[in-house]
Amino acid sequence: MSETETSNTSSSSIPLNIGIIGFGPFAQFLAKTMIKQGHFLFATSRSDHSQLCSQLGVQFYKDMNPFFYSNNYDVILISTSILSFSQVLSSIPFHLLRKPTLFVDVLSVKEYPRQLLLQVLPEEADVLCTHPMFGPESGKNGWEGLAFMYEKVQIRDEDICSRFLQIFRSEGCRMVEMPCEEHDKQAARSQFLTHTIGRVLAQMDIKSTSMDTKGFETLVYLKNDVIKNSFDLYSGLFVHNRFAEQELKNLELALETVKQNLLNKMDETT
Amino acid sequence: MSETETSNTSSSSIPLNIGIIGFGPFAQFLAKTMIKQGHFLFATSRSDHSQLCSQLGVQFYKDMNPFFYSNNYDVILISTSILSFSQVLSSIPFHLLRKPTLFVDVLSVKEYPRQLLLQVLPEEADVLCTHPMFGPESGKNGWEGLAFMYEKVQIRDEDICSRFLQIFRSEGCRMVEMPCEEHDKQAARSQFLTHTIGRVLAQMDIKSTSMDTKGFETLVYLKNDVIKNSFDLYSGLFVHNRFAEQELKNLELALETVKQNLLNKMDETT
Ligand SMILES: NC(=O)c1ccc[n+]([C@@H]2O[C@H](COP(=O)([O-])OP(=O)(O)OC[C@H]3O[C@@H](n4cnc5c(N)ncnc54)[C@H](OP(=O)(O)O)[C@@H]3O)[C@@H](O)[C@H]2O)c1
Ligand SMILES: NC(=O)c1ccc[n+]([C@@H]2O[C@H](COP(=O)([O-])OP(=O)(O)OC[C@H]3O[C@@H](n4cnc5c(N)ncnc54)[C@H](OP(=O)(O)O)[C@@H]3O)[C@@H](O)[C@H]2O)c1
Repeated sequence: MSETETSNTSSSSIPLNIGIIGFGPFAQFLAKTMIKQGHFLFATSRSDHSQLCSQLGVQFYKDMNPFFYSNNYDVILISTSILSFSQVLSSIPFHLLRKPTLFVDVLSVKEYPRQLLLQVLPEEADVLCTHPMFGPESGKNGWEGLAFMYEKVQIRDEDICSRFLQIFRSEGCRMVEMPCEEHDKQAARSQFLTHTIGRVLAQMDIKSTSMDTKGFETLVYLKNDVIKNSFDLYSGLFVHNRFAEQELKNLELALETVKQNLLNKMDETT
Repeated sequence: MSETETSNTSSSSIPLNIGIIGFGPFAQFLAKTMIKQGHFLFATSRSDHSQLCSQLGVQFYKDMNPFFYSNNYDVILISTSILSFSQVLSSIPFHLLRKPTLFVDVLSVKEYPRQLLLQVLPEEADVLCTHPMFGPESGKNGWEGLAFMYEKVQIRDEDICSRFLQIFRSEGCRMVEMPCEEHDKQAARSQFLTHTIGRVLAQMDIKSTSMDTKGFETLVYLKNDVIKNSFDLYSGLFVHNRFAEQELKNLELALETVKQNLLNKMDETT
């Protein structure tokens, strides 16, 4: 092992002070692993999550001000809904930060927070945009092999950034470094499409039957999984990913084509 | 074990003479297990499958006439495409049958073959309509737990019928006895829907990315699986299942509703 690697490994095992803004389902899910790894967690959120936080070992603040002035953060992790991100961001009392800090977001869209963070963060802040491509359901048996997308948007303190990334790397995540724009293009064709199909199946109220095929079982499972996410999350994938609308059109067009092929066959045979 | 059960078990181990009409992918798949179980197989088909048949140990006939007059069949299994079923049925030289025979079909729609079989079969024939709810892909690691749907439409020789069903029961299939009409209702909402979504995804040309979520992986797998089936099979699910058209409409409507919900959210937030 080279000296650099050794020093990396050792510094990456120093716990981080992580302040979480927005302590909803996804932040709660991430927090469990971060605590297991020995990091110190603090949180603030619109709703009162103090009870759950005290069970988890996270210090919870109802108000943003004491959340900011009471602690020296290495990392501020923003995990609010996509739709509330801008509003939450504008309510952050940046002047209370006690040192230059790494801001990380985990929103499921990436161009949008990237742009806003660069607009509103103090000049000395570092910015890491990330999207863990899994959630409480798909990650419930560990994170091994699951994709973690990130773009180092503005990093001066490489050490803090790499210690943060190490949280995911050490759990076995597949680390995918990629520009936010590229993420949004791909995610519109994959994640947004998947959620849309899950929502459509939920809208149809599909249910298991006594004679499900394997394929249909898969769809029932997908539907149940997708609708566990909030509608805010789903609609955020659409409203704040500029590539999503086209993919929705592509889906409609593809359905129309498949339907026409069926109707043509119907005409041929009757 | 009761006496009836003992005698059932012993008679069910006597091999059957099975004549297969339509030796496409699905019949080939079924044949392997039937041969493994010790049954005697004979086949005829539009195309020449004699080479594959000789490898499998199935006697192949290019023409229907010798196929019929050369053997004493316990069971005639029809495994042609849904779209060609009527035409194939009308070309069967029933007068060459050497004894009353059990006719079984495995079409993925059920009211349609049930009705046609009752129309054209000789009065003395028995009729069993079935749908093994799996195929070469989903059943490649055995049939344990996979659904096998059937309706005993007209059975006088219970022994032959139960020996035929035993082929699937003994492999661990979940045996689901159900009227053909009920099958078609449920299959339109499950199997036809699944194939439609697979075809739509294929039409969109979706592909794995470096950052697939578990849900999207599932859809890529489903798409690849579905398009292995012929378009004849897929369109048959639509053309000859009277419940399918409505489910296609339901799918379109559900997509429209989901889209409207997204557009409303878009309006609210801008
Ligand atoms: N769930 C996943 O699988 C997953 C995976 C990767 C990334 N993400 C991303 O992680 C973030 C959180 O996701 P989530 O699953 O927890 O659900 P979500 O519905 O997207 O977000 C819930 C969070 O947003 C906060 N929030 C919502 N509206 C607010 C408002 N008007 N003002 C202030 N805060 C508001 C909630 O605060 P309170 O709880 O305090 O009310 C909660 O912390 C999202 O950006 C999502 O895209 C989620
Ligand atoms: N594949 C599955 O997973 C699955 C599962 C359950 C039930 N099934 C049912 O099993 C049957 C066979 O399915 P498959 O997967 O093998 O593919 P398919 O495309 O539905 O049917 C292929 C079979 O139909 C015959 N055929 C097609 N057009 C014909 C015509 N004009 N005249 C005479 N024969 C014609 C083919 O004969 P040649 O090969 O001789 O050309 C071949 O034997 C279908 O009714 C299907 O619904 C399939």
